[in-house]
Amino acid sequence: MARKVIIDTDPGIDDAMAILFAFKASTVEVLGLTTIFGNVGVDRATDNALSLTELSGIATPVARGAAAPLKMDPRQHADYVHGADGFGNIGWPGPKRKPDPRSAAQFIVDSVLEAPGEVTLVALGPLTNLALALELEPDIAGQVREVVLMGGAVHETGNVSPVAEANIINDPHAADAVFGAGWPVTMLGLDVTHQVLLKAAVLDRIRQANPDQGDFLSQAAEHYFNFYRQSLGIDGCYFHDAATIAYVMDPSLFGCRHGVIRVATEGLAIGQTMMAPEGRSFPTPGWEGRPLTKVAVEVDDVRVLALFEQTLSVA
Amino acid sequence: MARKVIIDTDPGIDDAMAILFAFKASTVEVLGLTTIFGNVGVDRATDNALSLTELSGIATPVARGAAAPLKMDPRQHADYVHGADGFGNIGWPGPKRKPDPRSAAQFIVDSVLEAPGEVTLVALGPLTNLALALELEPDIAGQVREVVLMGGAVHETGNVSPVAEANIINDPHAADAVFGAGWPVTMLGLDVTHQVLLKAAVLDRIRQANPDQGDFLSQAAEHYFNFYRQSLGIDGCYFHDAATIAYVMDPSLFGCRHGVIRVATEGLAIGQTMMAPEGRSFPTPGWEGRPLTKVAVEVDDVRVLALFEQTLSVA
Repeated sequence: MARKVIIDTDPGIDDAMAILFAFKASTVEVLGLTTIFGNVGVDRATDNALSLTELSGIATPVARGAAAPLKMDPRQHADYVHGADGFGNIGWPGPKRKPDPRSAAQFIVDSVLEAPGEVTLVALGPLTNLALALELEPDIAGQVREVVLMGGAVHETGNVSPVAEANIINDPHAADAVFGAGWPVTMLGLDVTHQVLLKAAVLDRIRQANPDQGDFLSQAAEHYFNFYRQSLGIDGCYFHDAATIAYVMDPSLFGCRHGVIRVATEGLAIGQTMMAPEGRSFPTPGWEGRPLTKVAVEVDDVRVLALFEQTLSVA
Repeated sequence: MARKVIIDTDPGIDDAMAILFAFKASTVEVLGLTTIFGNVGVDRATDNALSLTELSGIATPVARGAAAPLKMDPRQHADYVHGADGFGNIGWPGPKRKPDPRSAAQFIVDSVLEAPGEVTLVALGPLTNLALALELEPDIAGQVREVVLMGGAVHETGNVSPVAEANIINDPHAADAVFGAGWPVTMLGLDVTHQVLLKAAVLDRIRQANPDQGDFLSQAAEHYFNFYRQSLGIDGCYFHDAATIAYVMDPSLFGCRHGVIRVATEGLAIGQTMMAPEGRSFPTPGWEGRPLTKVAVEVDDVRVLALFEQTLSVA
């Protein structure tokens, strides 16, 4: 039976890769997309999510989410990474479809309560919508199958500050609530996504086999590849958001540890995901009585990339 | 020519190992010991430092330093690690010698100005005295040969919180000042000290060869070994403070990276040493224009332990 997921997303080029990947995966059933500020503003994110459903011919609902973090002013969008339109400034036409009338948080709550124990929340952006859904209906924590999120870094250097990853620093208070809620959380952070390098050649081959989505991905990714080349000196891009779909399809691709995750919400460390490894105790307060998070630290990059290519190479 | 060092210390059992190690090293000239709160209170630290000079028959000055951190209330002493007396509760007799009349900070300033470019500051405790010396005479930053400190953790889990090491969390504001001062700083943190495990058998062999200091070390370390066995399930103790002396004697024993180190001074991350790797830039403020720290990340544990044993095995 296909695994039911809601993808919470701020598309974003690697979000687009993840969403198209999920739509093509026969083992994944996308119940809906919920949108969030982050790579772009939430209005643009909503339009982009709708466009991706049209591109795929899949009429899954799209519900608009939060425009700003719970307790802070929003940070600037990462236009230099994803382009001002989130799709590498390729002039992709806007969508015809309209969003679901519900908020993202309400959509999440409704979907989870309709299929208790079955829904996996895949989070590709700041965790504000998930935190708002918990506020709206705390009972969902016991009824979600798993939260799989791209975000954070435990051992690896951050990408926005030396200790902070973009999704988490964009709403550290929401992230700390999500890690503390008691639902099963799996964190795919920079520790694994920096180990998987997607080359342009893979997208070229996908385009040959599956022109509809392949053309879009190759065009949109050009800006993204340029950012990696010019800013980081890397020939390819890190496999951030799409790693979550690979994990949902086959968790054995990742090696994980468990630990209590807290998020720094102030000072120079803001946005950092700090891990108290399972079984260790510390004399400082703040770490006891919190649930364990499953933290990915190893990844079979070759098999992850092969799964991505094979899944998307079907026209 | 022997290398001139001042050892800033809160003895403490591993401090005692470091100090006796330095006294025995023909390539190290100890200009003085300066004392600091930490493993014990500063009065006890001063008595213990004086006792160690008497045990070694070396009449080096001992200057009393700060009793508390720059801007916080002091944390509790780690009696459960070092014993209430800092020497494993072995009832070691108090010293006959008296401390130098100067403060630790003044002693550091005077010694550095007397031998510009020659003095290495070896810091084994909280960095309060070094920060106070910088306040007293900022010019010393350009005249110290090197600051070699045991403290912090970049990749390794902390020992007081999941991200903080004991010396740094005991005065994070002082540590941030020391890392930012512009003198050459080498940081030996948990990243390397957790890679070197000192077994009781090494101290037994030292006692055979050098009963005077060996008896003391074996007795004092018994409490320390018990802490490691009972609290951490480790047969031996980590080679924390004494690693600094090994580094001063032979820097090639360590593999190092360079980066900007900032110390978290608030929230759950307090006391963390965060590193921006050399050559990386980040969109968040607080990391530009700061000096690079040399951060040890690798260590030849076999040769470090051999150097310690050989040096202390001379009666």
